[in-house]
Amino acid sequence: MDLLFLGTSAGVPTKKRNVTGLALQEEMGSDWFLIDCGEATQHRLLRTRLSLHDLQAIFITHVHGDHCYGLPGLLASAGMSGRKKPLPIIAPSGIAEWFNATRQFTQLYLPFDVEFLPAEALGQWAFPRWTVDATPLSHRVPSFSYRFTETAREPHLNTEKLNAEGIARGPIWGQLRKGIDVVHEGQTFKSADYVYYPQAARCLVVCGDNDQPELLRTFCQPAQVLVHESTYTQDVADRAGDTFGHSSAAGIASFAQSSGLPNLVLTHFSARYQANPEQSPSIEDIRSEAAHHYQGSLFLAEDLARYRLAKTGVLSLVSV
Amino acid sequence: MDLLFLGTSAGVPTKKRNVTGLALQEEMGSDWFLIDCGEATQHRLLRTRLSLHDLQAIFITHVHGDHCYGLPGLLASAGMSGRKKPLPIIAPSGIAEWFNATRQFTQLYLPFDVEFLPAEALGQWAFPRWTVDATPLSHRVPSFSYRFTETAREPHLNTEKLNAEGIARGPIWGQLRKGIDVVHEGQTFKSADYVYYPQAARCLVVCGDNDQPELLRTFCQPAQVLVHESTYTQDVADRAGDTFGHSSAAGIASFAQSSGLPNLVLTHFSARYQANPEQSPSIEDIRSEAAHHYQGSLFLAEDLARYRLAKTGVLSLVSV
Repeated sequence: MDLLFLGTSAGVPTKKRNVTGLALQEEMGSDWFLIDCGEATQHRLLRTRLSLHDLQAIFITHVHGDHCYGLPGLLASAGMSGRKKPLPIIAPSGIAEWFNATRQFTQLYLPFDVEFLPAEALGQWAFPRWTVDATPLSHRVPSFSYRFTETAREPHLNTEKLNAEGIARGPIWGQLRKGIDVVHEGQTFKSADYVYYPQAARCLVVCGDNDQPELLRTFCQPAQVLVHESTYTQDVADRAGDTFGHSSAAGIASFAQSSGLPNLVLTHFSARYQANPEQSPSIEDIRSEAAHHYQGSLFLAEDLARYRLAKTGVLSLVSV
Repeated sequence: MDLLFLGTSAGVPTKKRNVTGLALQEEMGSDWFLIDCGEATQHRLLRTRLSLHDLQAIFITHVHGDHCYGLPGLLASAGMSGRKKPLPIIAPSGIAEWFNATRQFTQLYLPFDVEFLPAEALGQWAFPRWTVDATPLSHRVPSFSYRFTETAREPHLNTEKLNAEGIARGPIWGQLRKGIDVVHEGQTFKSADYVYYPQAARCLVVCGDNDQPELLRTFCQPAQVLVHESTYTQDVADRAGDTFGHSSAAGIASFAQSSGLPNLVLTHFSARYQANPEQSPSIEDIRSEAAHHYQGSLFLAEDLARYRLAKTGVLSLVSV
């Protein structure tokens, strides 16, 4: 699964960073998911190979504009490019109402169905190779985290066991590996008894704005990757005397450390943080504060950077 | 007055062209007007020196998304950058309702007042150095053209007349030039009788989507510049058997020619037209079709290109 960041700035775009958007793209085929859709997400997509025809679903974390104002334009463009396939949008209350008002007042016609599913239902949304569920976060408005768990995994045959039980290599092995139970010479061999998965299911958690990382402790347990906002460094929050519903680098890094999370991807940086490390404050201030509290693999997301979560659970930067 | 194009594509953005937005910037000071605000207009502004603090007013031509979906994000960013000054928005019915729905459902707080003024009123909106009025166009939804007319002009003294009438050079001349009527030795000298304007008032007309250029004939009469859509070439409209409410290059160019308009700026090009003239169809097809019908100064707008309307009424490209 690839994580392709379409926007990594908080609140307002900068020359280098757009407001929030993240594409999750499967390595097989061209299907992808979109999490959040800040203004000009469709403009960022023009610089990728992702097609709006292959978009499986959109997940919106919360109603703030820097996470959703790109939605009408993106859907309009999908329509103008001839998309016919229905599109599910999982989003908190308000987004469907806003989109319906947008359709009405701006006379937007779409040649495909948009199916809004409420995030508040905390459902489990199933896709061909992944399931997604949600948990609530803490922000100035209802905000959600989405967890993507791989369901289509390649089973391995426990050949040692098969040999030990004297089941000869042949068509039976193939069927068991495919998940089919086999009756042979009056005896039933259950597939589940002879296959195993060498690696844990891949699992990644992508969060909306949130000032209480602790809410994620159980939800994150199976995850190899946590994508979370780190809007500023702790001193900025301390000076302001207000978190404005956001997390600091120290706050989220400490949580990730104590949860034993192997990979932490920070994003949603305040526009005050400069790309140039010689300027102050710079994005390197975020990095060093987080690194001080977290010993796992730490990534600071960049626009159009692509990270790959391998089947081994290792996350790595593929391209910028 | 400078015309700085922020977007020149119809319907969808391309890698080179954003959807519609045009900044009109006065040569004195930093005040500017925005006409239309497609998605990512605020992103384009990051590549200019224009500040959201100096924005005097926004004019929206019609409710279609490629002309207004950038509005909520632009206003949110103006608020986050600390704008306090009220902002008038002249727009057709639907925009105010849509914006109010957006405020409500996305919990958008703005620290300044937004004053919606209905385009349908066809009012005259006065600003310190320009007045603006509107006329309706023909499109799939109500669409408007806005005319900007300069009001703050430098009067010149008719020194020949003053000398001929024996009015001696002195403080009287200065007062007459400032527009003050003077009583001298029992005689009243009216300023208006002794001043003149060497050039006509600058006047430019900026249009929304429109399939009937003829509607602009009277409105355009005093204008030196017409900015109008030219979504496609005539053959595309002919093949489709439908104008979709738009004008062809031939259609608008013929109108401009028959109206004696000295400067015609085409914009809002279908994304099918390639920048590379070796590809087909290319933007040069639009240019050659228009040039075939129009002998005045013809411009095909480009994103971030700046055109200057001099006091002489001459329009020229300043920078790309």
